[in-house]
Amino acid sequence: MILSSNKVSKKALILHQRHKGKIAITSKIPNLKQKDLQLIYTPGVAAVSKKIFSHPSQKYFLTSKANMVAIVTDGTRLLGLGNVGPYASIPVMEGKAVLYKKFGSVDAFPICLNTTKKEEIISIILAIEPVFGAINLEDIESPKVIEISEELEKRMSIPIFHDDRHGTSVVVLAALLNSLKLVKKQLGSVKIIIVGAGSAGYGICKLLKFAGCKNIIVVDSAGAIYKDRDKYMSKYKKEIANITNPKKEKGILSEVLKGADVFIGVSGVKNLLTSEMVKSMNKNSIVFALTNPDPEINPKLAQKSGVKIIATGSYQYQNKVNNALIFPYLMRAILDYRIKKISLDLLLAASKAVAKTVSNSKLGYSHIIPEIGDRSLHKNISLAVSRFKK
Amino acid sequence: MILSSNKVSKKALILHQRHKGKIAITSKIPNLKQKDLQLIYTPGVAAVSKKIFSHPSQKYFLTSKANMVAIVTDGTRLLGLGNVGPYASIPVMEGKAVLYKKFGSVDAFPICLNTTKKEEIISIILAIEPVFGAINLEDIESPKVIEISEELEKRMSIPIFHDDRHGTSVVVLAALLNSLKLVKKQLGSVKIIIVGAGSAGYGICKLLKFAGCKNIIVVDSAGAIYKDRDKYMSKYKKEIANITNPKKEKGILSEVLKGADVFIGVSGVKNLLTSEMVKSMNKNSIVFALTNPDPEINPKLAQKSGVKIIATGSYQYQNKVNNALIFPYLMRAILDYRIKKISLDLLLAASKAVAKTVSNSKLGYSHIIPEIGDRSLHKNISLAVSRFKK
Repeated sequence: MILSSNKVSKKALILHQRHKGKIAITSKIPNLKQKDLQLIYTPGVAAVSKKIFSHPSQKYFLTSKANMVAIVTDGTRLLGLGNVGPYASIPVMEGKAVLYKKFGSVDAFPICLNTTKKEEIISIILAIEPVFGAINLEDIESPKVIEISEELEKRMSIPIFHDDRHGTSVVVLAALLNSLKLVKKQLGSVKIIIVGAGSAGYGICKLLKFAGCKNIIVVDSAGAIYKDRDKYMSKYKKEIANITNPKKEKGILSEVLKGADVFIGVSGVKNLLTSEMVKSMNKNSIVFALTNPDPEINPKLAQKSGVKIIATGSYQYQNKVNNALIFPYLMRAILDYRIKKISLDLLLAASKAVAKTVSNSKLGYSHIIPEIGDRSLHKNISLAVSRFKK
Repeated sequence: MILSSNKVSKKALILHQRHKGKIAITSKIPNLKQKDLQLIYTPGVAAVSKKIFSHPSQKYFLTSKANMVAIVTDGTRLLGLGNVGPYASIPVMEGKAVLYKKFGSVDAFPICLNTTKKEEIISIILAIEPVFGAINLEDIESPKVIEISEELEKRMSIPIFHDDRHGTSVVVLAALLNSLKLVKKQLGSVKIIIVGAGSAGYGICKLLKFAGCKNIIVVDSAGAIYKDRDKYMSKYKKEIANITNPKKEKGILSEVLKGADVFIGVSGVKNLLTSEMVKSMNKNSIVFALTNPDPEINPKLAQKSGVKIIATGSYQYQNKVNNALIFPYLMRAILDYRIKKISLDLLLAASKAVAKTVSNSKLGYSHIIPEIGDRSLHKNISLAVSRFKK
């Protein structure tokens, strides 16, 4: 059932109020009896502590660490809402924790930080590591978050999963692989416009390039990114410039979009894409308008304007290209195989696994990507990731 | 059933291994359906985030904050095991979380820190506050932990519960009130020796003094603490010296214990108390040997040596004077009545509530304190704390 935005908002508020949030801490030990107390608490627990003290690797077997993920945010870039701070970000992080549990059997806990300073965020994550088996960075502004993630990868022995970058890139590439199959175009020859050069844009660009895309142009608020552009360039935008836009095309979105085959919107800007703009694209055009909660173009308008395949990040429409499809299963596999680093290789393998989850018989213009609850997702992603076990 | 230490240790290890730790994160929303995803995650969740952004106090009603407690440790003073670090402390913190849930319906999550620096611990707790409704400081070395707690009380709007100090003081005073009733002695006239001047010793001393005890002597590893003692004095030991030991008694434990009515051990030293020492106490002596996992004296030896009332902190013996009896219910009440500061007034009221939970008909030498699962504990503590609601 597709509800109007207004109805969804009202129902969401009522649901959250009724349950006072969405997550609870529970005991793994069923039917805890009075006589068990001496085992889970003093004096018995002392033997468990001593064991970990003398054999540190036992922490993975005697505590909840192996299955526990910290979802860390500072609330500086929540959904498409912007910098709303740590308190307003709690509902999103709790929602993520619920999805982690429901689809991946992963225990995840929100860490919403009262600081936005890069160095502080890094020290806090290093300091809270003991109880966690992985870190999920979430909705932290870019490029700060990429710097944080690179620094943590160097200094931590548990994996740093940056869902806005890693998860989004996997779901986008999977959807793109299936879409291109439908319109009979090749990854290596299509012209792709990515709008947004934040975490998602950067991640998608890197993975698409790694997968074999040759003609990608990334557009930010200053227009197309090209080599030697001198304005608004960060370290990561320079990296983007180096691997994309081979013809050094310049100009605003409506200019570079002309003749493009694929539009990928991770811009954070509602209704950025007009009917005229999509009409200027190549035929059999593919539009992924992924900004949440409101996409870059209304799917109905896109279809009316001649788009062949339209996808959004929202549960309200068909073709839900949302990382929620990926992160529970990907994290499940990362924890199961004790993956230490999320490589492009691994992300490419995961994308292919997600793409093939949609069988040829089911694949269609409004079915380019599996549903979030698809039972084969776990099996396929797990198999793909297992090959990266060291 | 009372198991031997060895058996308890083995069973504890097996239990922890079987469940891979003790806590899980679960969804509060029963039978989450596909159609609910748009309410708990995007796009619906955006309305909840916007609501909190515009009305910050709504965080207490739309997220899990109101019932979520951080159990924070740096592992510097775990049980009686000493400085075993954050990893070895996880099992104790998880155990605490399980007890919080089982007896207090409180959601508690362990934060085990990779740093022991006071200033860092303070900044981290300030930074992670958004998702928590209260902080429980646990097994951090003293006097650092008291300094941390005082600093946080000044800077935070959520309560700082220091269980080693607050919880222990409540359970000890409750047990003492009932014990004195049995031996027909008065709080104002008994001589009390507290061994250990860490968090527990400091907390017990402060609350006993506040409750009306006039002759308390606190003993640390350098002997009795008295006014003008010049060695090994911290800010908090000076405070102890100022409110205790009116006759400025000096000497080691065996010297000042002579003629005492009450021994309270929170020393961290196994078998500290000998048969000879307890024989030197006043008649109808009361001994609380509370160090975990191994008490200051074996309860059987204490009884053989003439002690009238013996209690330990362990589940293995009768008279379990363990803060586990208190903290789930006390935190329940603190959260329910949105108590901001844990005052001595409140702790005294809670102690009396715990003491009276043991009815006169049940009160006896081996039954000075309620069992942890006693259903009246919740009601009685809640009523006592409700009077402190602002």
